Amino acid sequence: MNTYLAKAQKEYMEKILLKKKMDTFFIKESSKNGLANLERIKKYLPESLLFKHLKRDIVIAQLDFERILSEISETGKFTVVSGLNPSSGLHYGHKILFDLLLELQNIGADIYIPITNDETYLDGKSESLGKSKETALKEIIPTIISFGFNPKTTHIFIDTEYQDIYKLAIRISKYVSMQELYKLFGDEALSNPGKVFYRGCVQLAQILLPQMPEFGGPKTTLIPVGIDQHPYILLARDVAKKIGLIPPSELVIKFQPSLKSPETKMSKSDPSSAIFLSDSGNEINTKIQKAFTGSVSTKLGHNEFGGIPEICTVFSLLNNQCQDDTLVLKTYSDYKDGKLLTTDLKKIVAKLITSINNDLHKKVRLVTNDDIKSFVLKKHLKSVYNS
Amino acid sequence: MNTYLAKAQKEYMEKILLKKKMDTFFIKESSKNGLANLERIKKYLPESLLFKHLKRDIVIAQLDFERILSEISETGKFTVVSGLNPSSGLHYGHKILFDLLLELQNIGADIYIPITNDETYLDGKSESLGKSKETALKEIIPTIISFGFNPKTTHIFIDTEYQDIYKLAIRISKYVSMQELYKLFGDEALSNPGKVFYRGCVQLAQILLPQMPEFGGPKTTLIPVGIDQHPYILLARDVAKKIGLIPPSELVIKFQPSLKSPETKMSKSDPSSAIFLSDSGNEINTKIQKAFTGSVSTKLGHNEFGGIPEICTVFSLLNNQCQDDTLVLKTYSDYKDGKLLTTDLKKIVAKLITSINNDLHKKVRLVTNDDIKSFVLKKHLKSVYNS
Repeated sequence: MNTYLAKAQKEYMEKILLKKKMDTFFIKESSKNGLANLERIKKYLPESLLFKHLKRDIVIAQLDFERILSEISETGKFTVVSGLNPSSGLHYGHKILFDLLLELQNIGADIYIPITNDETYLDGKSESLGKSKETALKEIIPTIISFGFNPKTTHIFIDTEYQDIYKLAIRISKYVSMQELYKLFGDEALSNPGKVFYRGCVQLAQILLPQMPEFGGPKTTLIPVGIDQHPYILLARDVAKKIGLIPPSELVIKFQPSLKSPETKMSKSDPSSAIFLSDSGNEINTKIQKAFTGSVSTKLGHNEFGGIPEICTVFSLLNNQCQDDTLVLKTYSDYKDGKLLTTDLKKIVAKLITSINNDLHKKVRLVTNDDIKSFVLKKHLKSVYNS
Repeated sequence: MNTYLAKAQKEYMEKILLKKKMDTFFIKESSKNGLANLERIKKYLPESLLFKHLKRDIVIAQLDFERILSEISETGKFTVVSGLNPSSGLHYGHKILFDLLLELQNIGADIYIPITNDETYLDGKSESLGKSKETALKEIIPTIISFGFNPKTTHIFIDTEYQDIYKLAIRISKYVSMQELYKLFGDEALSNPGKVFYRGCVQLAQILLPQMPEFGGPKTTLIPVGIDQHPYILLARDVAKKIGLIPPSELVIKFQPSLKSPETKMSKSDPSSAIFLSDSGNEINTKIQKAFTGSVSTKLGHNEFGGIPEICTVFSLLNNQCQDDTLVLKTYSDYKDGKLLTTDLKKIVAKLITSINNDLHKKVRLVTNDDIKSFVLKKHLKSVYNS
């Protein structure tokens, strides 16, 4: 073997090891504390319910998801709650969650979106409650609307502005013990009384809100979460059982990897790791050019060994964003076989993401204050005063 | 000595021991954790500032009270915050607090009265947030108004109805550590996340509210508390220093003793221990007849040894409620000397308390919804959004 190939082989083996490491990580994450993977469910699911996030392995684990499927087959209706921390504008790490919500809305879900500006402040991700409220109102809600949610079945609220949530949090705090919280979240996440209240009650109130009498009482609810948010669901299920509500089901989403490594998630704390929904075509191109890929660094080596799409942060964007199943499958195999070059993969993905962003930019400019009003939750929780 | 006297002497000695025990208890309570007694202050205070609670030893300790006195001599103005747990209608244990607030208003204080219906619920003293809110609106606020507070300088709010208090609580929670809370309050008082939030932030927000920009910014504040509430003041002073506010001063009030024993306080949890402001003359008479007094059980014994007004739950009502200094002093010495019989003391006190209650009943009937509105705090806290 010549020197070039030997060098490429070494590089390839390192990437194969990284793939194995990631596989092991996701298998471990998707089997902890009551979670199960989705293989069995995917086998018997009708094509109409096999939504993109399932087909593309973007959701990797579930808890009690069978309950949602029964509900769909019985009533065609279920409820989804999915909160958002408004620490900055949205990036593609957030978008995969909203894409999932849209898919769930298409198959019958009512959607509740709490915007947790109190959490943003408490976790030091925003200098003030006002700043995180502004981000929510000026950037996040208009962008969510531009995704195409149905205002009749989508209910958005900002925590500090929908204050009934705090009354509900106080009301249900009785059913949570500090021992349980410390066990689920650890000392660090509970370092001040505001964090204790947020993690132990407010988040819980958000999850259980749709089951309050004003919203129709106990109902089948699904919570899509990132892999680090599983403890909230365990807590919510525990409290739901204590107060006669239906324990919420859970879907765990794989994170959108950072452009720098498949091992970490896209995050606004490192802006070059993330493509923001506000990015221009030029910004997208520049970021994707520098992204970590699944192939070795020489064309010759890539032709010989092929790429590893599973750890390619660029392919991941295609997998998670492209609507065309055939194109995704063909790109996967061509890239894996070494037929599709990394530069060409990058071109395809940059074009796709630029087109998505341009489309969103157009739509977000059309969002009016009246649109925002039509999405914001107004109904008051009088039942919070009941015993 | 004859048998009667020997028996009376034994009884008298037991009561003397009880007095010593109570003296020791109050000396200990009024010297813990930075508190000081009021002897030195009382010596140099002008007659105009020697309000009833000081003269009659109803306030027993202070922290930084000199700051209030300086403020009075400089500006004639200061601010008082004093919360109330609306677990039931008010009794004479509550009234001594409101009497003090009235005295403080007379010497220039602006008064803030948070009605802590969330605390009532969290501590299991009310079956629901709604019940404790109703008690606040229907019983407590009208009664407070009937005491004669000035609506221009008295600001009442119910926690769940003045929700800006929760935003302020979240905003300042950053300055409180869980270690500090556990040290001040212990595990039991912090057994669920709602209690942690209430004790660690909401109570603090109430105390610091008048120092927010909307209420004129940093200012000299006095917090009258019961002897068990000292930890809140230590916490509030600590946080005030951290965020550039003036550490609040403290006055510690002796509790109004239960009718059953000078060692415990009047409490609605044992209704026969308390005279409620809603009680009729008959109820007052019946309760006072059965009350624990400072004298031995025979008339002969009382004549011989005299009474011990300091541990007499009936004399305590006179001391704490009668406006007439001369009458209180004369009753004290006549009872102590054995000249005034217990039955006569009871008659004097029952008459006084009945007359106070009858007067309040008349006034409370005249309280209108407009009166209530004029006392309820309406100003919103926009500054809570600032960094």
